[in-house]
Amino acid sequence: MSKVLIIGAGGVSNVVVRKCAQNSEVYSEILLASRTKSKCDAIAQDIKNIPVHTASVDADKPAEVAALIRDFKPELVINVALPYQDLAIMDACLAEGVNYLDAANYEPKDKAHFEYSWQWAYHDRFKKAGIMALLGSGFDPGVTNVYTAYAKKHYFDTIDTLDIVDCNAGNHGQAFATNFNPEINIREVTQKGKFYKDGEYFEIPPMSEHKSVDYPQVGPRESYLLWHEEIESLVKNIPIKQARFWMTFGQEYLTHLRVLEDVGMTRIDPVDFKGQKIIPLEFLKALLPEPGQLGQNYTGKTCIGCQLTGTKDGKPQTYFVYNVCDHAECFKEVKAQAVSYTTGVPVMLGGAMMLTGKWKGEGVFNMEQFDPDPFMAEIGKWGLPWNEVFGQKLV
Amino acid sequence: MSKVLIIGAGGVSNVVVRKCAQNSEVYSEILLASRTKSKCDAIAQDIKNIPVHTASVDADKPAEVAALIRDFKPELVINVALPYQDLAIMDACLAEGVNYLDAANYEPKDKAHFEYSWQWAYHDRFKKAGIMALLGSGFDPGVTNVYTAYAKKHYFDTIDTLDIVDCNAGNHGQAFATNFNPEINIREVTQKGKFYKDGEYFEIPPMSEHKSVDYPQVGPRESYLLWHEEIESLVKNIPIKQARFWMTFGQEYLTHLRVLEDVGMTRIDPVDFKGQKIIPLEFLKALLPEPGQLGQNYTGKTCIGCQLTGTKDGKPQTYFVYNVCDHAECFKEVKAQAVSYTTGVPVMLGGAMMLTGKWKGEGVFNMEQFDPDPFMAEIGKWGLPWNEVFGQKLV
Repeated sequence: MSKVLIIGAGGVSNVVVRKCAQNSEVYSEILLASRTKSKCDAIAQDIKNIPVHTASVDADKPAEVAALIRDFKPELVINVALPYQDLAIMDACLAEGVNYLDAANYEPKDKAHFEYSWQWAYHDRFKKAGIMALLGSGFDPGVTNVYTAYAKKHYFDTIDTLDIVDCNAGNHGQAFATNFNPEINIREVTQKGKFYKDGEYFEIPPMSEHKSVDYPQVGPRESYLLWHEEIESLVKNIPIKQARFWMTFGQEYLTHLRVLEDVGMTRIDPVDFKGQKIIPLEFLKALLPEPGQLGQNYTGKTCIGCQLTGTKDGKPQTYFVYNVCDHAECFKEVKAQAVSYTTGVPVMLGGAMMLTGKWKGEGVFNMEQFDPDPFMAEIGKWGLPWNEVFGQKLV
Repeated sequence: MSKVLIIGAGGVSNVVVRKCAQNSEVYSEILLASRTKSKCDAIAQDIKNIPVHTASVDADKPAEVAALIRDFKPELVINVALPYQDLAIMDACLAEGVNYLDAANYEPKDKAHFEYSWQWAYHDRFKKAGIMALLGSGFDPGVTNVYTAYAKKHYFDTIDTLDIVDCNAGNHGQAFATNFNPEINIREVTQKGKFYKDGEYFEIPPMSEHKSVDYPQVGPRESYLLWHEEIESLVKNIPIKQARFWMTFGQEYLTHLRVLEDVGMTRIDPVDFKGQKIIPLEFLKALLPEPGQLGQNYTGKTCIGCQLTGTKDGKPQTYFVYNVCDHAECFKEVKAQAVSYTTGVPVMLGGAMMLTGKWKGEGVFNMEQFDPDPFMAEIGKWGLPWNEVFGQKLV
């Protein structure tokens, strides 16, 4: 029976709060805080079985977060705010000696990175403080890290290749919208592609490598090699010769993105406008539909999984583990589309692993550093069942 | 030998100033004023044969323009500033009793109109003040109005159809750029299409009617029915049964435009952004290349003309009159691309018609209300020669 402070009130937060309330044996009381308290209230009003308090907080300011922690005394701070705020919230946790969990790596405002270095640099301080930080407890990163650890534990002696594939075959009925924070989404897809092979990273032009992947329950979709942050931690924690990440995009999405890049709307450097400095991508975000509002008429499915090749007991092994999630069913359950859902459920479960002591440590950790079995045993029950395929290559 | 005040320092202004200097028998001295004096200085520094003074002015403020007029005592104010500023500059001319000329109809900030009503409403005041305003003395409106008046005077007893066709087959080498003020350009093409037939206006969805037009020296290009302001004055001043305006757009331009519309970047209503009101189209303008800067590597040609059908001496008549202009040649002559050039030359010549008394009147006038012959006799010499084709239908 634990109290948690949840920071952020976007589409993922909505799922996390509802899922925590479903798991009331672990989560007994929530303080939900974000810049705009009314967004917290809108989420809280539907929760009846556990108390959900709300508060306003500027998560860029460690002192404000620390004050909430001192007042509410949570066992865990769940950060589903903006990735720019990760370090400030970690600072607050350090100051108050409370555990930390997030779903996306820290990003500086001015340049796309998607690297763990800033957060890993907190390891010694968290260790010294005797507290734990769990990084990237969403789906990808998150479940994909656990999938990989599970594959390593049970099915592989050596891993030659890891291909993480992320397909959203949903239709939200909007001309153009991103499925999560547009700032982060557009940063991800406009940066150079990057992959890992034999101890080195290789960069390629954005969206320049793609192939058709035949996703279970979805069918073949053109998938693009992107840099995604879990590659960095996975190749550090698990011996893998080659690791790549692939994501599907529709032609229309790519056309919109190309045009927005052409005209400079995806820039993250400030532009002079009538004597002010405005970051084009931030302004674009203000125009685009809120990802949390896309759920209503969203149809179709997502499919995210990990394909691994390597050896087991001296024989070649090929393994694919994946989840399929349906947008409309997610909306029926938690008023959210599947991209928010697949991120929010592992946030709740990662937190539960910490709060129940199934995963514990002192310092800063990624998901694959813990025993995957208890997580894999429970994730299906909370809405993200997984399937395995042996001996078949998708990518 | 006349002094003129030229307001505005964009791509068109650059051409107007250079062309006025070429026509130093009429234009003896220029005061060039705009919000940013350095832009005026950049234009003025190349002119050696007549004095070009520069000044800073906020053209939204009639008192500031009036002060310049009182000080410099021009015979004519040439307005090549923003169309939002037309009325303020006309007010200043009224206050100081000086003639006025512009190249684009007044536009209110908040809604796309492209109507002459606001400026026509000044007619009685200009008449009473004994001064003249010449509206729309660019290419289209402008030369197209003169072409139509010339056709009526020499080749038609009755006019059934007028089709104004505007083709830019140039390549500026930019992913996306507009050839003149992006705010105005994008307003024009995102508004509903409109045409005139039998005394009525008909509206159609934006860009919904298009056909291939075979432009002389350019070849066939897909051309889209747009509303363009000269239709309004032409059908008022010349009996025409049906009048339409067509403009070419490349597929890439249209794709960019569609995407920018999709995401809301072409909106001209203010949007909340971090507690401020920002008009997306104004912000987009700040990101796009300055049309005046497109000239350098611009290749290809423009072709703009008027096709008329009707009768002469009881027999069917079909007539096409047009100009072809080459981007690279324009740049060699005046450091401007052809879209600025084709607008700037008629501004200079319209002004010369007024200053030499070939066109005179008291009140507010459009180009077709004056004798087209002296204008048609001179326009070729100043860089925009015209050709005629009889008996052939392009549209």
